[in-house]
Amino acid sequence: MRSDPQRLSFSIGARDGAARAGVIQTPHGPIETPAFIPLATKGSVRGLDTDEVAGLGYQLILGNTYHLFDSPGPERIAAAGDLHGFMNWDRALITDSGGFQVFSLAHGGVANEVKGSGRKGDHGSEVEITEEGARFRSPRDGRELFLSPEVSMQIQAELGADIALAFDECTPFHADRDYTARSTERTHRWLDRCVAWYDEHGPSGQALFGIVQGGTHEDLRRESAEAVSAAGVHGLAIGGTLGRDKEEMAAVLAFTAPLLPEEAAKHLLGIGEVDDLLGGISLGLDVFDCAVPTRLARHGVALAPSPETRWRLDLRKGRWVGDRRPMVEGCPCPACTRHDRDYISYLSRAEELTAVRLIVLHNLTYMRELTTHARSAIEAGTFDAYRAAVLAGSPPWTA
Amino acid sequence: MRSDPQRLSFSIGARDGAARAGVIQTPHGPIETPAFIPLATKGSVRGLDTDEVAGLGYQLILGNTYHLFDSPGPERIAAAGDLHGFMNWDRALITDSGGFQVFSLAHGGVANEVKGSGRKGDHGSEVEITEEGARFRSPRDGRELFLSPEVSMQIQAELGADIALAFDECTPFHADRDYTARSTERTHRWLDRCVAWYDEHGPSGQALFGIVQGGTHEDLRRESAEAVSAAGVHGLAIGGTLGRDKEEMAAVLAFTAPLLPEEAAKHLLGIGEVDDLLGGISLGLDVFDCAVPTRLARHGVALAPSPETRWRLDLRKGRWVGDRRPMVEGCPCPACTRHDRDYISYLSRAEELTAVRLIVLHNLTYMRELTTHARSAIEAGTFDAYRAAVLAGSPPWTA
Repeated sequence: MRSDPQRLSFSIGARDGAARAGVIQTPHGPIETPAFIPLATKGSVRGLDTDEVAGLGYQLILGNTYHLFDSPGPERIAAAGDLHGFMNWDRALITDSGGFQVFSLAHGGVANEVKGSGRKGDHGSEVEITEEGARFRSPRDGRELFLSPEVSMQIQAELGADIALAFDECTPFHADRDYTARSTERTHRWLDRCVAWYDEHGPSGQALFGIVQGGTHEDLRRESAEAVSAAGVHGLAIGGTLGRDKEEMAAVLAFTAPLLPEEAAKHLLGIGEVDDLLGGISLGLDVFDCAVPTRLARHGVALAPSPETRWRLDLRKGRWVGDRRPMVEGCPCPACTRHDRDYISYLSRAEELTAVRLIVLHNLTYMRELTTHARSAIEAGTFDAYRAAVLAGSPPWTA
Repeated sequence: MRSDPQRLSFSIGARDGAARAGVIQTPHGPIETPAFIPLATKGSVRGLDTDEVAGLGYQLILGNTYHLFDSPGPERIAAAGDLHGFMNWDRALITDSGGFQVFSLAHGGVANEVKGSGRKGDHGSEVEITEEGARFRSPRDGRELFLSPEVSMQIQAELGADIALAFDECTPFHADRDYTARSTERTHRWLDRCVAWYDEHGPSGQALFGIVQGGTHEDLRRESAEAVSAAGVHGLAIGGTLGRDKEEMAAVLAFTAPLLPEEAAKHLLGIGEVDDLLGGISLGLDVFDCAVPTRLARHGVALAPSPETRWRLDLRKGRWVGDRRPMVEGCPCPACTRHDRDYISYLSRAEELTAVRLIVLHNLTYMRELTTHARSAIEAGTFDAYRAAVLAGSPPWTA
């Protein structure tokens, strides 16, 4: 692991089993872990201004290199200083490398494919992948775009994130072992090129995380964890497919997480459902980004303490007519303290923008409460009990 | 005019020519006039929670009887207490009677038709208008619905608005004089039925405004103003077509406004562009509702001090790339104090929800600044100079 405290340091303040409560220090302030990371994919968190995201207690958000490369382009963001300046966000920022999105284009069905539920090979012809990098067409306007380890690092340098992610090949679930092994080796060669670019050009305020691949294969995950740890990065992320379902994901994470160096900050990419996040925390993972909390809001779905519905309260259902309860009893969010299910359900079915906003505020409050209370439980040595209570249906703030 | 101070009182604190600065007292607090009224057509102001609308300084918002009748229905709103309770809005509320929307369905092209730019007779078969009322199909789900003076009053009673508007026939621009005359007479008969219903059933906390029709015909407007004033209402609104263009509107308002009783609160329905609003104020009109400020935001258009573009700044244009100025220099709104045109233009073109929200906050701040400063100018006896400065391109807060 690279030690570079002016760029990033990670200290662990408390442990409870494998779980830990830590602080990642960045040039844009601290990130108390475990932490959920809201997505600002295209430069805004859905429906919120950045000061509101900070007001909810978030210290880190994620911008997406692929989307911001496509539009508005890194030059335009650099002209505003960096992505912090462009968005007016003065806390910490991490950028995805673009690998996930490019290989989703190549393999079809984006997240579904990585998660094992997509079809194979849709739109594969849109992307040409070579050892050099990936050439593809903008799905927005058809322009030809090219991403490689060097280009991704260059863009992320222009975006000025506190944490850049190495450009990886995100192996899909349906790939066989042989493909996954060769793909993981390419990810390691690409990581070396990222590190080489970074050694020469890396911004003084930016740290670099490597991405551990290897699919669902323990030996490949082990090789990858060793290669990435040795490559000279400040932290590690777990990427790629974690299997067909939650059981397989739990098993893959159970053997992968311990392979990562104890002292490193560890990011689980793209995972952020309530149970999965608690599972990741129990394995010593520190930060988690996920589109689900903000995406659900668009479809009228609020997070709620109901394991039997995967923590989803579908406000578009007709059954909430006349229901005077808040989305979740006791929730401190601005929506639950002011409105009932009857009203929010009506607004959501009527496609009123205000509904999306209210549910985003709720869902992000819910996730922040979850990680804040998980952190307290780790400090108190009661994380297992906290996790069990939430998995049994307690709200995150009372467990 | 009806005097009923526990329901509504209007006092004029200052005059400057025909313009006046007043206060409408309602059971849900005062409305300082002149006032712009944001639309909460379906129960929310676009993208904002009601506490934010109050935070912008608004004391009165408008809900729409036609839309709320269609969905969620008055029973459901009454079950929450009233529309105040349903939305959690504790300031004053006015409800449109539904007449405008029904007759827009009948005559095609909603606002365009009333304003003279629509085509005649589209969808006319959808609405059956008789002396009893209007029978039509829900454009949402095809259910047959019926609105009449009594039904509209009943719904508005259930909505619990501080101010209800009488159910009128909203004569379109293309109607000839004879049709307009007969239509206006029907509006008066319907007003008598509204008042009769109200005398028997009107909620103790609700005032009733009548609507002056008569199209672009001075004699018809005169007859209508006299009939409405004599009908036993607490205030008056000017409705129906005001002509083909801004010149004709100014002329129609110039002869219509003085026909209304001096002591009455006067509402100009559906008009709220910057120049029109100042014109209305100069004629002694007090409150103005309009969809434009919130609707423009959805299309990426901010209000700005540029008479040559009708006070519109189109942020979807490419020319704002790299522009570090706020939407409007000196604007106190949360968007202008935090973001530049470059960012908001990008967000709007990217269809990010946050863009709509930021521009709504700006546009409603702009309108509130306009009426607040108009009020101060009236109190200072400088309204003509204020109006001239704004019409010449000064921002509302510096003129």
